[in-house]
Amino acid sequence: MRRGSLLRALTTLALAIACAAGAWAQAQAPLPSWNEGAAKSGIVAFVQAVTDPKGKNFVAPADRIAVFDNDGTLWAEQPLYFQFLFMLDQVKKAALEKLGTKPLLELLGQANSGMTVAEYDKTIRDWLATARHPKFERPYTDLTYVPMRELLDYLRANGFKTFIVSGGSSEFMRPWAEKAYGIPPEQIVGSQQEVKFEMKDGKPVLTREAKFAFVDDGPGKPVGIYRHIGKRPILAFGNSDGDLQMLQVTTAGEGRRLALIVHHDDAQREFAYDRGSHVGKLDKALDAAPANHWLVVSMQKDWKRIFGFQQ
Amino acid sequence: MRRGSLLRALTTLALAIACAAGAWAQAQAPLPSWNEGAAKSGIVAFVQAVTDPKGKNFVAPADRIAVFDNDGTLWAEQPLYFQFLFMLDQVKKAALEKLGTKPLLELLGQANSGMTVAEYDKTIRDWLATARHPKFERPYTDLTYVPMRELLDYLRANGFKTFIVSGGSSEFMRPWAEKAYGIPPEQIVGSQQEVKFEMKDGKPVLTREAKFAFVDDGPGKPVGIYRHIGKRPILAFGNSDGDLQMLQVTTAGEGRRLALIVHHDDAQREFAYDRGSHVGKLDKALDAAPANHWLVVSMQKDWKRIFGFQQ
Repeated sequence: MRRGSLLRALTTLALAIACAAGAWAQAQAPLPSWNEGAAKSGIVAFVQAVTDPKGKNFVAPADRIAVFDNDGTLWAEQPLYFQFLFMLDQVKKAALEKLGTKPLLELLGQANSGMTVAEYDKTIRDWLATARHPKFERPYTDLTYVPMRELLDYLRANGFKTFIVSGGSSEFMRPWAEKAYGIPPEQIVGSQQEVKFEMKDGKPVLTREAKFAFVDDGPGKPVGIYRHIGKRPILAFGNSDGDLQMLQVTTAGEGRRLALIVHHDDAQREFAYDRGSHVGKLDKALDAAPANHWLVVSMQKDWKRIFGFQQ
Repeated sequence: MRRGSLLRALTTLALAIACAAGAWAQAQAPLPSWNEGAAKSGIVAFVQAVTDPKGKNFVAPADRIAVFDNDGTLWAEQPLYFQFLFMLDQVKKAALEKLGTKPLLELLGQANSGMTVAEYDKTIRDWLATARHPKFERPYTDLTYVPMRELLDYLRANGFKTFIVSGGSSEFMRPWAEKAYGIPPEQIVGSQQEVKFEMKDGKPVLTREAKFAFVDDGPGKPVGIYRHIGKRPILAFGNSDGDLQMLQVTTAGEGRRLALIVHHDDAQREFAYDRGSHVGKLDKALDAAPANHWLVVSMQKDWKRIFGFQQ
């Protein structure tokens, strides 16, 4: 045995012990930021059922696929989807130059087209480092929900593979989602801009074009899941009508399934909105929840805290 | 600590020990079906360099992304891409019915459109279970290359995440790739048929349409990698001009990189073809190899055996 492989073996062992310790801690008190109630007990009962090797609802680890919407489910989305705020900032300069000559939506579509994907990635990182949320006056990446981060950890400690399935673009989430949620770039399914391969100064690059290749929203979400994951999730979590079809597909499968909806009903700590909202409209999915046994999670009642910076 | 979580901790520990044992075995004699030579020593030197935590070429496990073409790289592709043979079999019945009324390519495009993705998956599985390769008279899934399966194992034992990036469709590979290569459905990037979400008899289903949404070949491969993985691979393995851009993008990154090409030069044990072939044409990529330091792997000289059923 070479020294390198002994070292690797020991590292693997140490990781396993750390992982087991994490699982133990989670088992002691899973979901500490969740209040006791139907939502928390429903989640814990589901996880226990599908991980019990002797139970009739057991699911092999390879099939423990959990999908999460991002905007309004894992982080906030008011007063506008954060990616939209980013894009507005990008076109401000262009808009001032071309004011009155082009409609805003056209400018938005063209924003950052012609850039290489590496340049675009840097633009996103720069914006995230400096932009501040208008209400909370903090970096947007501070606006992830603590209870959801606990849930992601809890699922992974129980052998789940966690994916984001978002109407936003993958490239907007990849720079920060691993640190924020523990979800790596290859587990992010999102809307897709057209990109084109070309040689530029003798180097192969991907250049962004001014049109969308795929919209991962509403009926697009099951399509995105099929293409990217290729398995039917056993758990899905959303917050709006854009998640309706993803929840339907998840719970239409055989065996035990769990679908959940974040209900934004906490005007004091976050925002309160549902049927009439211009972003994250929750109407049809809220109506469909009871008959489908989807759990509706009240931010006000089910969550002890929302953001890491609060209390 | 609940009994369940103790059990889980012990299972994790046992898995870690098994994994360490596997790494040890690999370290003893990696790539047993590869002959000594520039290809094998180049692979081993690369893996040692990027996994040595004290070396200047160290790459963190999260960035150890390895991408593999499928047809002609992981399994055979003559006399025609196996997916094409499958599609031909699918249209045979339709072709006999509509003989002379429609061109073959149109029939191929329409084959299996209108099916749900679950029905299509079953069609593929049924075909694979009964179809036989015309030369080897064996199931197509017997025609995977043993040296490549060893390489995939060797890379994973060294912390790599392995992906297929194929011109064929993901759905054609998913039913068998996990068993054959240890690559799960969510790590398969391929060409994509349009699919549509709809409710059918009150159930949400995805239905296949008669057109392609994305062709993951040639300049499409870096696009597929960008969309699906979101990281630049550090190792890429192909066999044809359809892999040229994938190899270019891989070796254009910073730090140590490895690109390889399977050269089909073994008419006796498999097939011999390159520049003039109608499938798996290898011409531009072969010319580009020396200047780019891409390793050309000779099936005849570098591989002790090719298929599991041989010798």
